[in-house]
Amino acid sequence: MRICIINPNTAAAMTDVIAAAARSVARPDTEILAVTSSMGPASIESHYDEALAVPGLLRVIAEHPDHDGYLVACFGDPGLDAARELATAPVMGIAEAAMHLAAPLGRGFSVVTTLHRTIGRAADLVDRYGFSRQCLGIHACDIPVLDLETNPATAEILEKSCREALQADGSDVIVLGCAGMADLAHRISDAIGTPVIDGVGAGVGMLSSMAAMGLRTGTASGEFATPPPKIYSGSLAGFGDSART
Amino acid sequence: MRICIINPNTAAAMTDVIAAAARSVARPDTEILAVTSSMGPASIESHYDEALAVPGLLRVIAEHPDHDGYLVACFGDPGLDAARELATAPVMGIAEAAMHLAAPLGRGFSVVTTLHRTIGRAADLVDRYGFSRQCLGIHACDIPVLDLETNPATAEILEKSCREALQADGSDVIVLGCAGMADLAHRISDAIGTPVIDGVGAGVGMLSSMAAMGLRTGTASGEFATPPPKIYSGSLAGFGDSART
Amino acid sequence: MRICIINPNTAAAMTDVIAAAARSVARPDTEILAVTSSMGPASIESHYDEALAVPGLLRVIAEHPDHDGYLVACFGDPGLDAARELATAPVMGIAEAAMHLAAPLGRGFSVVTTLHRTIGRAADLVDRYGFSRQCLGIHACDIPVLDLETNPATAEILEKSCREALQADGSDVIVLGCAGMADLAHRISDAIGTPVIDGVGAGVGMLSSMAAMGLRTGTASGEFATPPPKIYSGSLAGFGDSART
Amino acid sequence: MRICIINPNTAAAMTDVIAAAARSVARPDTEILAVTSSMGPASIESHYDEALAVPGLLRVIAEHPDHDGYLVACFGDPGLDAARELATAPVMGIAEAAMHLAAPLGRGFSVVTTLHRTIGRAADLVDRYGFSRQCLGIHACDIPVLDLETNPATAEILEKSCREALQADGSDVIVLGCAGMADLAHRISDAIGTPVIDGVGAGVGMLSSMAAMGLRTGTASGEFATPPPKIYSGSLAGFGDSART
Amino acid sequence: MRICIINPNTAAAMTDVIAAAARSVARPDTEILAVTSSMGPASIESHYDEALAVPGLLRVIAEHPDHDGYLVACFGDPGLDAARELATAPVMGIAEAAMHLAAPLGRGFSVVTTLHRTIGRAADLVDRYGFSRQCLGIHACDIPVLDLETNPATAEILEKSCREALQADGSDVIVLGCAGMADLAHRISDAIGTPVIDGVGAGVGMLSSMAAMGLRTGTASGEFATPPPKIYSGSLAGFGDSART
Amino acid sequence: MRICIINPNTAAAMTDVIAAAARSVARPDTEILAVTSSMGPASIESHYDEALAVPGLLRVIAEHPDHDGYLVACFGDPGLDAARELATAPVMGIAEAAMHLAAPLGRGFSVVTTLHRTIGRAADLVDRYGFSRQCLGIHACDIPVLDLETNPATAEILEKSCREALQADGSDVIVLGCAGMADLAHRISDAIGTPVIDGVGAGVGMLSSMAAMGLRTGTASGEFATPPPKIYSGSLAGFGDSART
Repeated sequence: MRICIINPNTAAAMTDVIAAAARSVARPDTEILAVTSSMGPASIESHYDEALAVPGLLRVIAEHPDHDGYLVACFGDPGLDAARELATAPVMGIAEAAMHLAAPLGRGFSVVTTLHRTIGRAADLVDRYGFSRQCLGIHACDIPVLDLETNPATAEILEKSCREALQADGSDVIVLGCAGMADLAHRISDAIGTPVIDGVGAGVGMLSSMAAMGLRTGTASGEFATPPPKIYSGSLAGFGDSART
Repeated sequence: MRICIINPNTAAAMTDVIAAAARSVARPDTEILAVTSSMGPASIESHYDEALAVPGLLRVIAEHPDHDGYLVACFGDPGLDAARELATAPVMGIAEAAMHLAAPLGRGFSVVTTLHRTIGRAADLVDRYGFSRQCLGIHACDIPVLDLETNPATAEILEKSCREALQADGSDVIVLGCAGMADLAHRISDAIGTPVIDGVGAGVGMLSSMAAMGLRTGTASGEFATPPPKIYSGSLAGFGDSART
Repeated sequence: MRICIINPNTAAAMTDVIAAAARSVARPDTEILAVTSSMGPASIESHYDEALAVPGLLRVIAEHPDHDGYLVACFGDPGLDAARELATAPVMGIAEAAMHLAAPLGRGFSVVTTLHRTIGRAADLVDRYGFSRQCLGIHACDIPVLDLETNPATAEILEKSCREALQADGSDVIVLGCAGMADLAHRISDAIGTPVIDGVGAGVGMLSSMAAMGLRTGTASGEFATPPPKIYSGSLAGFGDSART
Repeated sequence: MRICIINPNTAAAMTDVIAAAARSVARPDTEILAVTSSMGPASIESHYDEALAVPGLLRVIAEHPDHDGYLVACFGDPGLDAARELATAPVMGIAEAAMHLAAPLGRGFSVVTTLHRTIGRAADLVDRYGFSRQCLGIHACDIPVLDLETNPATAEILEKSCREALQADGSDVIVLGCAGMADLAHRISDAIGTPVIDGVGAGVGMLSSMAAMGLRTGTASGEFATPPPKIYSGSLAGFGDSART
Repeated sequence: MRICIINPNTAAAMTDVIAAAARSVARPDTEILAVTSSMGPASIESHYDEALAVPGLLRVIAEHPDHDGYLVACFGDPGLDAARELATAPVMGIAEAAMHLAAPLGRGFSVVTTLHRTIGRAADLVDRYGFSRQCLGIHACDIPVLDLETNPATAEILEKSCREALQADGSDVIVLGCAGMADLAHRISDAIGTPVIDGVGAGVGMLSSMAAMGLRTGTASGEFATPPPKIYSGSLAGFGDSART
Repeated sequence: MRICIINPNTAAAMTDVIAAAARSVARPDTEILAVTSSMGPASIESHYDEALAVPGLLRVIAEHPDHDGYLVACFGDPGLDAARELATAPVMGIAEAAMHLAAPLGRGFSVVTTLHRTIGRAADLVDRYGFSRQCLGIHACDIPVLDLETNPATAEILEKSCREALQADGSDVIVLGCAGMADLAHRISDAIGTPVIDGVGAGVGMLSSMAAMGLRTGTASGEFATPPPKIYSGSLAGFGDSART
């Protein structure tokens, strides 16, 4: 079983963190490939960055066919629907996966993300996935994405944000709101005595489960069938060929 | 990793179907234990049956501590909250697991269950889990639970119901609405060319993912902490001891 | 007109409180029968207790046919759907009844219940009955169920909780969240100058209204028809006969 | 106990039907006063009629203080919030009362009203009261309000509409959508074998229950306190005095 | 293009404020007619006032046919549906218009209205128009409607309330909750650096857009067709003729 | 007043249709600039196309600062949130604008779009904007986007689809689901006697209204502030400078 994880920003160091987190929870029979996007923003901290990360992630999927699942490793879950049209194997985002795994683990969960300005996007995803009742709050620890690995106080600040979220929301579970936090889930969970969910691990788990069951994205309604052929122009001319992987 | 699956009715033949389905998708490092309830109804086809299946399933959990996950193998998801208080490992129902796996696989899913009278319960679960937008219809194939294995026309009737549901609802995915259908998911999926989800496999997958990530039911809000000690009377006197497994 | 009230825990003293509250508001032509469950938990303070109270309450209904309405006197409304299949007369829970009576009395209501851990269950009932907009908050006074009658400070603590709930939620009405509080509704209402609703009285009122109008649970969709006959095993073997009362 | 029922249109014959239906289900200790509005439309079949029926119904309430409950006998529930500010006793509309009584009697209810153009108003009330999940359909029998009593085919047409609604919606209960149908509920219920709810009876039942419990509209949030004094002009100058009854 | 604005209270000074605000934003080719109601309350501060303002506003519409749009200049949006049946041109309320314009301007908006007791009505409108997710809070500045123009501290108090709302709700936009605040939108927006929306300007903009596109209220479903002819009695006898303008 | 309309696909002929529709309804004092994207797909008929149209539309906005409003002329409303961060003037999508204008014009609206596979995206937008109750159905006429102008039967097929939608949904208003249909709104409205809304006209109207009121996208919550500076790589390297227009 082969799972392809796409880091849709161009920060290779973050891809390493993601790959390690993925491998630590993967099934023994699962091979993890983690790929860094080659075009677009260095980190994703706005709707603008997120929109412009999508071409790069679609490129990665097109260049890596023959996998049993694709995981988009950015908590904004950029480009999911487009990726589902392109890939024949299931596609998940890490926010989506984390929330699906969090919901059955208690009365409700709190999300703790990076910058305050990304809270709105997380709220939109909560609504879209149907977790309005289960998500009891979304909070920011106010550490920029690329500082997560370099700021020596990251773990401490994040732990504090998680404790406060738990208290403010009366929740039972924490969902970490950035792929770059993947290595901290266990440490914080141990510290605060509450399940803390990293979306990378959650996504690997859910995609592996789908793969083991032989499941692919359904195309019966036509929405997720291969996109109709189309002429593409300008610097995106290379995207005209959207044959499913 | 050890997953305990509880068949909350007393039909041992159905437990065998469930165990086989579970093992066919389990991680290589996962041991599946499937246990038949020793008290209550022979099959679950009403709210009455479902309510009276709960003591038996709680008994199974209490008698099988030290597992990494518990799966309740009845599509009505009976007794989930009570089981979560009792077990220290995560607990899922097969309706819950199937819906969580179905949602990311397309625009929407249809449920195909056994008797018409169980549609209401499935609808309640859809609402509770947050899948009102993703679940596009709930249908009955009108085969009683215990006839699923013995009726030679089961596969044919069920396949027909699935086709009709897909057409009527414009959905991309089928969710099978009974643990006793677990052995038919692949066959129907192949026949109709659409992902067909069996909740037993889905539950094993999600619980294994939680276990691999070290996740347990959260108790921070207190709701799922061990129940307060209490005197129990009558034929349920033995349930007074509810220490978590 | 005969209304049967079931106390689904085994505490007979609480049944007396319930019966007195019911009789104080019943129609002159209504006979109240209050029955204590003979099996299961002494009080209901967890999902576990609640699930295990259901067999006892179904037993009471089966043993008391020929009533015009059945009221389940526990604020978790355990076993309502099963009871509706079993009884030919209407069945209500006290949470359900209290919320239906509270909604038309103002902009919104606050629930004040016993232990903090039961808040989640009340929230589920609010959603299920459709009162998400009307219920503005759920609060706990943190008095265990069986201490309500014996703790000399109960009235004072509960009154304080009600005042705080009203203030915090901006609500117009208080719903008391436990059958054991039935005798305190008037006293607290007088003290805080706000309608305070006891579900026992509300349930008697609504069931009497249904009875006067000749209404029974509808069975047209089949969901609440008599459960199919079934073999029951173990200590629940006696429940196999589920003919409607 | 005294309940005042206001027919907000000026058709006195309809008031007689309403009064009879109310008395047939009232508590033995309850006195029913049914009053016809003296100003506004002869029947209510549009938003325009409904809006212009409100002054007349407020006038009736102001002229009949000292009652224990007020029931607005038009299925559009006109002027409820204004009436609640004016009256000290609880106020209900017949749509509101019928829906509250219908919800606990099955999986869902269907509304059968008079003219097609009133379906939208009924849908708004369903949403407002929180019964979006319980109301499975709203249907019109296309008999004008004032023809209900005079058209010899009313019962037959209405029965047919009820049967069709039940079938189309998969519901368990019928709610009749006009006060002028109050005398037909039993006959239709007997014919179709399903609970059929007349809002007049339901309203008398719920208001009597509130009165027996000593409940009044809550004013803690201020919304339903007596309106601030105000100068009124023109043909409505007489409404300046809005002291609560 | 001709837009008719109805001030549904009888305070002519407020009509002047409204007219000025409307003209300051109207298209160059648009004529604004602002009319004061001649019957009913001097200001609208309760459900009672609002209900009794509707006859007067319907009278204004009937007396001013041949306009391309009608704007009801009271934030409770009284009588909208009735007005839509009566007028052939589109009808909007200022709360409705303000919310439609506010939603696309940010993550969410806060409403700041006059008296605390009117918050409930605003909340009902938010639900009705579909802005439950976009409206993040409703606040009162506690200035009576008719004091808005005469109280020298109005601007200061209102500005303070807007700042507090923005902070408390985390919103991006302010909606002013009274037609009498129309002249203060720019001043407060400049002071707090956030878009502040006056519903009068918003309504003129939306109705002009509809008129420029040749749009009228749709009558295909029949709900907003001309009301059926009807006898009207008492002091409202003159309303019997409801032919659409 | 200057409004910039972006056609996010590369079909210049469609931009001409859009510009003409916009100018026909614009205020006399409004200048319309319609710009065709220079990169990405020739038409937008899938999630894949839509995602890849966003860089081109952001480029257009960056290259055309100093406008008073930006309209994204594709019914999938691609890149709205990113565009709002980039532009200082308000940004709307044509689906968003059409729905806001449709809602006040009747009980509900039907959307008629191009290909069946785009229905899902329209449904997501309906939910996001809050129009779940107002949108009564979404239908496809099954004409590819670029065939709308060239297929001689377009008007006839589209008119038929609109009639069927109106009938099936019981709606009062039609919303056309593609910018390429902008020239057909009046013709179809005249034919079917129902308001038919083209999102281009609706968007010009709403943006002009905002501009006349001096409104800009709110940035108080930070979500729509200028994106943080960032290194961009690959063929999207030029997008690193995201200073607001």
